[in-house]
Amino acid sequence: MAARPTNVQTHPPKGQLTLTFPQPAADAPVKGRSRLDSRTLARLPRAQKTGPSRRGVTAEMLARQQREISVSEFFAKNRHLLGFDNKRKALLTTVKEAVDNSLDACEEGGIAPDIEVTVKQTDLDRFTVTVRDNGPGIVKQQIPNIFGKLLYGSKFHRLKMARGQQGIGISAAGMYGLITTGKPVRIISRTSSRAQAHMYSLAIDTKKNRPDIIADEMVNVNWPHGTEVTIGLQGAYNKGRQSVDEYLELTAIANPHGRFVYHPPIGEMTEFPRGTETLPDETREIKPHPYGIELGTLMKMLKETKAKKLGAFLTTEFSRVSSPVAKKVCAEAGVTTSTWVSAVTPPVAERVYNVLQNTRLKAPSTNCLAPMGAEAILTGLLKGIKAEFYTASTRPPAVYRGNPFQIEVGVAYGGDLGFDHRDNGDNAKGKGERAQARVIRFANRVPLLYQQSSCCTYKAVVETKWNNYGLSQSSGAMPQAPMVVLIHMASVWVPFISEGKEAIADYDEIRKEVKLGIAECGRRLSTLLRRKRKRATHSKRRDVFTRYIDEVVEATRAITVINKEDFRKALVALSKQYTAQADLEFDEHGKIIRRHRPGNDLGLADTVVVEREDGVAVPTTLFGENDKPRGKKSRARAGKPKKKSRNRRK
Amino acid sequence: MAARPTNVQTHPPKGQLTLTFPQPAADAPVKGRSRLDSRTLARLPRAQKTGPSRRGVTAEMLARQQREISVSEFFAKNRHLLGFDNKRKALLTTVKEAVDNSLDACEEGGIAPDIEVTVKQTDLDRFTVTVRDNGPGIVKQQIPNIFGKLLYGSKFHRLKMARGQQGIGISAAGMYGLITTGKPVRIISRTSSRAQAHMYSLAIDTKKNRPDIIADEMVNVNWPHGTEVTIGLQGAYNKGRQSVDEYLELTAIANPHGRFVYHPPIGEMTEFPRGTETLPDETREIKPHPYGIELGTLMKMLKETKAKKLGAFLTTEFSRVSSPVAKKVCAEAGVTTSTWVSAVTPPVAERVYNVLQNTRLKAPSTNCLAPMGAEAILTGLLKGIKAEFYTASTRPPAVYRGNPFQIEVGVAYGGDLGFDHRDNGDNAKGKGERAQARVIRFANRVPLLYQQSSCCTYKAVVETKWNNYGLSQSSGAMPQAPMVVLIHMASVWVPFISEGKEAIADYDEIRKEVKLGIAECGRRLSTLLRRKRKRATHSKRRDVFTRYIDEVVEATRAITVINKEDFRKALVALSKQYTAQADLEFDEHGKIIRRHRPGNDLGLADTVVVEREDGVAVPTTLFGENDKPRGKKSRARAGKPKKKSRNRRK
Repeated sequence: MAARPTNVQTHPPKGQLTLTFPQPAADAPVKGRSRLDSRTLARLPRAQKTGPSRRGVTAEMLARQQREISVSEFFAKNRHLLGFDNKRKALLTTVKEAVDNSLDACEEGGIAPDIEVTVKQTDLDRFTVTVRDNGPGIVKQQIPNIFGKLLYGSKFHRLKMARGQQGIGISAAGMYGLITTGKPVRIISRTSSRAQAHMYSLAIDTKKNRPDIIADEMVNVNWPHGTEVTIGLQGAYNKGRQSVDEYLELTAIANPHGRFVYHPPIGEMTEFPRGTETLPDETREIKPHPYGIELGTLMKMLKETKAKKLGAFLTTEFSRVSSPVAKKVCAEAGVTTSTWVSAVTPPVAERVYNVLQNTRLKAPSTNCLAPMGAEAILTGLLKGIKAEFYTASTRPPAVYRGNPFQIEVGVAYGGDLGFDHRDNGDNAKGKGERAQARVIRFANRVPLLYQQSSCCTYKAVVETKWNNYGLSQSSGAMPQAPMVVLIHMASVWVPFISEGKEAIADYDEIRKEVKLGIAECGRRLSTLLRRKRKRATHSKRRDVFTRYIDEVVEATRAITVINKEDFRKALVALSKQYTAQADLEFDEHGKIIRRHRPGNDLGLADTVVVEREDGVAVPTTLFGENDKPRGKKSRARAGKPKKKSRNRRK
Repeated sequence: MAARPTNVQTHPPKGQLTLTFPQPAADAPVKGRSRLDSRTLARLPRAQKTGPSRRGVTAEMLARQQREISVSEFFAKNRHLLGFDNKRKALLTTVKEAVDNSLDACEEGGIAPDIEVTVKQTDLDRFTVTVRDNGPGIVKQQIPNIFGKLLYGSKFHRLKMARGQQGIGISAAGMYGLITTGKPVRIISRTSSRAQAHMYSLAIDTKKNRPDIIADEMVNVNWPHGTEVTIGLQGAYNKGRQSVDEYLELTAIANPHGRFVYHPPIGEMTEFPRGTETLPDETREIKPHPYGIELGTLMKMLKETKAKKLGAFLTTEFSRVSSPVAKKVCAEAGVTTSTWVSAVTPPVAERVYNVLQNTRLKAPSTNCLAPMGAEAILTGLLKGIKAEFYTASTRPPAVYRGNPFQIEVGVAYGGDLGFDHRDNGDNAKGKGERAQARVIRFANRVPLLYQQSSCCTYKAVVETKWNNYGLSQSSGAMPQAPMVVLIHMASVWVPFISEGKEAIADYDEIRKEVKLGIAECGRRLSTLLRRKRKRATHSKRRDVFTRYIDEVVEATRAITVINKEDFRKALVALSKQYTAQADLEFDEHGKIIRRHRPGNDLGLADTVVVEREDGVAVPTTLFGENDKPRGKKSRARAGKPKKKSRNRRK
């Protein structure tokens, strides 16, 4: 009953060695001395005293050990690749995989998601996770494969934005549950109110990667359609960062069209009500874009296509290859659109490939993407975070390796985010420790909670020169500011760095887009900060001026007899004129509200400034851009950001 | 022929929004103002104007899209998981996988490895990698599966230290080559000088994950046995960090028993000669340890075992379960060793599992591990790095999740590592920028070149309080010091964070061992640094003293008539006596060499200080420990490190 020993003492510990060489110190005369010579080395104790006997293992002996490895065995042993590194993460991953599947199913069925998550603690480290959705349900025949087989699903072979991609998630969660508790997964699914619900108990046979059906029966349920999954597993429950609670909170932010009910193992039930009745735009499946494939892939596609002729092959198997383009490509490659696909030799394929890569093609269609939209991001930030300033921006779609993607960035700043309120616009550097900015990441509306520092989006935040936007930042670190940066990547294929889907791989195209999105928000933030700083400066200046007014009045009166009060008033007026900016912000609206210069009365009186891209002109005086920039650098940053960003979009 | 557009303009960009809320500034009177209300939100433009039509996708329609995904399709799409993120890394990974396989084959065959690596550039971004070894060769029948099928191999199903683990590496490299160039992999293998060599050309059929044999013939080669793999691929070649060159250099350090010949695409051939004729200790396969399995695994083993009775099952399928232990375990679980395995119900299995977990068992045997040894680490560091101080330490074996592992740490400090030489023992903090320490990582003798910051070993280095060892370090960062830290993990199963095997997962047990290894080396380093600092202080003190001697002499002479020269000499002698330590280090040996106190003449005159653990007493005066520690803290650190570390091992 004793604790397990973690150190082992069966083997005598190996030797430990230290060598020191005299070094020429700046102030010491040094005699020549050779580096470690063979004599010295010979005096060292041998760490490996016993040479191995000739093992004489032959190729035949080695061959007998060769075996196939099933993909479930592989992931069972490498479960950390799937997000089951430890008990706490295992619980989160299980909930996440089930909820992601439910959301995907509802959206495919055109149903506003209504999802109920129940996490029950059954023993010290045993939990039961139940997730029920109101999706279209799963037909009986498919249930065993979907839940009891790794690498099985509908989302891998198509290019369409979805939360699931690989066909691993939920079956891996079931496998983890089985391995740690020996308990099978229970699935109840009902496809319509006319059909009866079906219940399965499944255990995955890891050696063969296939489902082992333990129970298979009809049951009665009181919901019209949907799927309910129950998984028993070894886990650990905590609140706070990286918890199931945080995951659901962020999921609700990113999916305002969904309603979520959460029964945590301890504490009260939480409901995240639906924020909108509008489902996200329906996404369409697209064909691969020629820029995204490689020579070998093209050759494989040529082998597998149903098209008989090269022209048909090019136009049907790829997106953005029209008949004229196909004709041109074929001609340049020295073939025609009527060339038989079966007659395409590897050298011809390579020519076609090269021509395709060098032909100017339209970028892939982007109706396969459904970004959250700036409004939804703003609503989400408003719901979850008490800040002073919010902004959001949706980048136009871009492409990496032939896959379209779209980046959205939201920034919340100030307010309750900082733990001190001294940051009222002064350059508060060195004024004591400040909270680091926080990054909230989403991929296809799924919150990413782990491996932040490996994530492309995080790198983009760190690489952004926040000092340019008026925040303090040490090189290679997050900015020190009361700020939250939300980043969403929507893509038909998010390149995750692991099967656990915890961080986005660092593609240049993606990082660049994220940085551009951050820059858009950053510029708006910097305008706010600049004005706050200016207000503070002017306010200080006036203080100083005012302090001496009485003295000046007295002194002047002594020289020449004037009306003391008049003179005072004149001076105060002068002071006010020169430091007018100091009270621009103190008007009836609170602050930074109203500009006194005529013709410039836009400011932020409306609280909400909207930059629309659908042709409506953007006010260039967003924060009073008429202030003359004071230097070249300041002009470059603050001068005409709107115009610049619009240019970049062309 | 134009460059590809990366930004897409087909879709009108979505809206961008900014909200600002007035915040109470310390100096501004603020009127009450509610947060964003529904009226304001209603004025926002709708980012998603068009609600989707009811899609009405039914479960049946969804079911038709479900498909099985082959593991090769999966990894072809997720190739970054295997280390083929970009062209440069792809080239490195290909060489790495081939060389690792070769080394494993040679060692299993009991042959000192002799490996020739040729990288040829055939086009702008096309390379051919050829790796030939003198291993036992591969029997003809196995070649297609080993090179043309993912998840196939001899190393996955056993617990034994090897470079390869998964049965993915080399076939994935071939698959990447095929995808990017359309060229098959060529393998020539000869199993003995009596047999003829066999040549295969293989293309992996990704859809089915099986080899597609393109050529299969007998060939003549001029080597007696071994295997040669040739892969054509898209790649990029650079020198420097994370290059093929660095990989081979580090591999030669970690495998001094191997000879490596490298023909780079540009430049001269490099040879890394064999450093020792002794092969590493032969490792033995072990059975899983009961502490390393989970309930579900036990249940699966019960199903699959050939043993008929529970006693036989426990003793044959696990390591460290002897007959008496099995008997005791069975008794405690309420069964006997003669209970039929087939009669074990899930509740009984759970009882057996719980008893096993709570029974004190011997830690797994460690002859499955072959650490490099402190000597080899030291030799490697000496070969590759010009430093001033070297030390290495091999930790005793430990266990994580039932898998034995062993950590080795080497540290090289000073010398050519710093780019300035001002660091001669003074506390040089703030003296200008200094080189950051570098970490060199190995797992089972394979250098790890990527994903450093995600690696458990790196985290251990960062978490170590280097300030305690006299180095400057900001929190959460690498120490700022001219230093290289080498870390090697040897294990039957290294938990990599990705299939690309680039970083070690962060298990507490592993991180703890690495930190202990670092601490051992750090303590030795700190002793050196402390003495250097002391020398510098004394030297400075003497300078000050000497500077005033003449003045004192003059002044004193004016008061009383004495022999000027005698007095001067007396003062100099006094000065020397009080600052004696200042020149201890400047003696004939260079520095830090000879102590003048009688009975303490050990120091570092022998250049090499050896700490052996096989019973030979460790000199406690390693660096002159007789210096009285100045405070409690200093005593804890420097006082008796040897004794402490020995205690810890018990």
